[in-house]
Amino acid sequence: MTGESGGGPTALPRVVVVGGGFAGLAATRALSGHPVDVTIVDQHNFHTFQPLLYQVATAGLEPADVAYPVRTIFGREPNVTFRHGRVTKVDLDSSHVQLADGSALPYDHVVLATGAAAGFFGVPGAAEHARPLYTLGDARRLRNHLLATLEAADAHPERFDGGAPTFVVVGGGPTGVETAGALVELLDVSVRRDRLRIDPARTRVVLLDMADRLLTAFDERASRYAEDMLRARGVDVRLGVGVADVRADGVELADGEWLPAAAVVWAGGVSVDGTLAATLGTARGRGGRVVVGPDLTVAGHPEVHVVGDAGAVPLGPEVEGTSPQVAQVAIQSGRYAGQQILAALDGRAVAPFRYRDKGIMATIGRRSAVAQVPHLPVVRGTLGWLAWLGLHLVYLIGFRNRLTVLLNWTWRYWDWPSGPRLIVADAESEP
Amino acid sequence: MTGESGGGPTALPRVVVVGGGFAGLAATRALSGHPVDVTIVDQHNFHTFQPLLYQVATAGLEPADVAYPVRTIFGREPNVTFRHGRVTKVDLDSSHVQLADGSALPYDHVVLATGAAAGFFGVPGAAEHARPLYTLGDARRLRNHLLATLEAADAHPERFDGGAPTFVVVGGGPTGVETAGALVELLDVSVRRDRLRIDPARTRVVLLDMADRLLTAFDERASRYAEDMLRARGVDVRLGVGVADVRADGVELADGEWLPAAAVVWAGGVSVDGTLAATLGTARGRGGRVVVGPDLTVAGHPEVHVVGDAGAVPLGPEVEGTSPQVAQVAIQSGRYAGQQILAALDGRAVAPFRYRDKGIMATIGRRSAVAQVPHLPVVRGTLGWLAWLGLHLVYLIGFRNRLTVLLNWTWRYWDWPSGPRLIVADAESEP
Repeated sequence: MTGESGGGPTALPRVVVVGGGFAGLAATRALSGHPVDVTIVDQHNFHTFQPLLYQVATAGLEPADVAYPVRTIFGREPNVTFRHGRVTKVDLDSSHVQLADGSALPYDHVVLATGAAAGFFGVPGAAEHARPLYTLGDARRLRNHLLATLEAADAHPERFDGGAPTFVVVGGGPTGVETAGALVELLDVSVRRDRLRIDPARTRVVLLDMADRLLTAFDERASRYAEDMLRARGVDVRLGVGVADVRADGVELADGEWLPAAAVVWAGGVSVDGTLAATLGTARGRGGRVVVGPDLTVAGHPEVHVVGDAGAVPLGPEVEGTSPQVAQVAIQSGRYAGQQILAALDGRAVAPFRYRDKGIMATIGRRSAVAQVPHLPVVRGTLGWLAWLGLHLVYLIGFRNRLTVLLNWTWRYWDWPSGPRLIVADAESEP
Repeated sequence: MTGESGGGPTALPRVVVVGGGFAGLAATRALSGHPVDVTIVDQHNFHTFQPLLYQVATAGLEPADVAYPVRTIFGREPNVTFRHGRVTKVDLDSSHVQLADGSALPYDHVVLATGAAAGFFGVPGAAEHARPLYTLGDARRLRNHLLATLEAADAHPERFDGGAPTFVVVGGGPTGVETAGALVELLDVSVRRDRLRIDPARTRVVLLDMADRLLTAFDERASRYAEDMLRARGVDVRLGVGVADVRADGVELADGEWLPAAAVVWAGGVSVDGTLAATLGTARGRGGRVVVGPDLTVAGHPEVHVVGDAGAVPLGPEVEGTSPQVAQVAIQSGRYAGQQILAALDGRAVAPFRYRDKGIMATIGRRSAVAQVPHLPVVRGTLGWLAWLGLHLVYLIGFRNRLTVLLNWTWRYWDWPSGPRLIVADAESEP
């Protein structure tokens, strides 16, 4: 075990940020250029732009379009070091972060931004047979499976129930809605442009949710709009239905109905159970999220900050409840943790964290999206889609990524017959 | 076992093209729009632009930049069908191509364009420990290994002999020269832009060849130029040395010297042994290539055409010898087979195949390449590099690919700190 941080002993306070997602990047950015020695650790050498993973899964974008090397992001920040490795433990007693390769990083402050994992909430068979969509690896595996399934349907339609595959998406939140919409577009391109011999009338995309409407975080008109648009595009939207069992060849619904499925996409939510945050040994709330105080630190450990999906981030000092597990919360809580560390090192007090809801949006497909900003009317249709497009491009890290994504979308918009529909790999490396 | 081709019995002659590389595409293109029913089969759903694989391996390009879906290439050709599958056997007696999924495709003519595989030529340990660079999967695995090695060198320099990794490239042909040059550029970007803490002075790239000069297919001045440029960029070029043994941690040279190596890249040539072509049961020549007549068909089987790397393609009717295993031969022989099939079906005679050498080129790195066109003086330096760039862009399939490749290269030229240095996966799916 070797103690290290920034290349040796240093007079500067050491901050270890665990996780290179939205929250970890925001915390590191807030600390960049300040008199602290920051090490950001991730098991992948890249940041993933999670809101667009469904596009990678449905062959609209390439992995490199939504991923960006963490080293490159902080390449010009002399006080930030990237460390490629998997954290196995945060030792609160000795203030060390332990890595799988046997190293240990001592810290004065640690920011846990380790995210969540797909939450299967005890549905039998879901962990084994459903395909989550939370990591870049998930997206690539799902894509390869979808494309290989379409090729199999071309060559051997008789091997599918009803002569064509059915794709089931579980979960009517933004990820589920976006995936179902993009799946229909993938089928359309496959038949029309690539001349796959599958019967579009028999090939089904089913979107399931237990709630009685889609996008429950939005207002009801937005929900109805999304539902109408998806149905108009051919998605079989089923509301108020639970999933009883997921098997290799389909889904059993709570009412006993059997849906054969060539793929079950799990957009049913996330949980912190089973992740590094769950091993801290401190109090945990709903979905396994680590309970933190108004300053986003763990009780009794003002040097341990938990942000983003991993933490039960409060909405604010005078508001009851916990923030949702969305990108905006991750960015705001990460940035807050960075600022709070600088304040604590200076002996300054900071105001409690407060989530500022900047609005939510979801795209349903080409020229169709809903956007909802507080105190403003719901935007939908082409205008909503353009708002969604602009915002995602602005937030996408890296000029190259923005350009290639824009390029891809322009292609798709004009319906050019190109696009990255490659079946290239099916396993992610674990460093 | 089901007989199928283009969706059922048809009056049109059936041509099956096995392989979606340069040769298979050229044959299919020659048959497009003619009264034949063409099925092109490949185990991958994409064509790979092999000349640029070394760029994927050294993180200069993304897999999607050098790969293009076969379906999309022939999306507007009604007489061409793509079939995703692995061919296990060509049955010359019953004129069927058998697939791993149990199907069989009957043919009137078959074009075998199955390429080659890395040739290890009996060097002990090479097949197990050296890393070839012939398929997209090879390139991605090599890239992930190189990037992960650099990360390990940053975190644990003490784990490497001499405190830094050594990379060995075996083979001084175009692939070896290009890979060695690109490796030096990757190291440079990693240290200068990504601030990896590895010592550039200790990190070695060694290029080995048994011959006494690099690029033996070029004239001697081109060889010397390449050697000088590589040395000036820091590559340790060792000529006249054979490899006795490849192990997990290095290479033993024929003279007994031990070179520790974090990666051994195998650019030592290709062989047809172990590939589908080797199972035909007909006569085979050097490197296992299938012996063909002046019309590129197998003796006694005028309906069986073997083209590209898989065939011992003659140089021409009055020239002794076999064509080299390069893209130009694949393209020309594939196109010839397509034309020859049309002629045979019409009862027309065709002239024997003749290879037209349009010249060879190899890049050494930024602004440096050699190009040699018959009857012209050797072009080198920036002009050679621009010629190389232009020619590769012209041959690259698909507008999107060309644009993103150009984008990436412009980036690199101006030394912007972006680029697809992602460690994303380490295994390719086999359908």
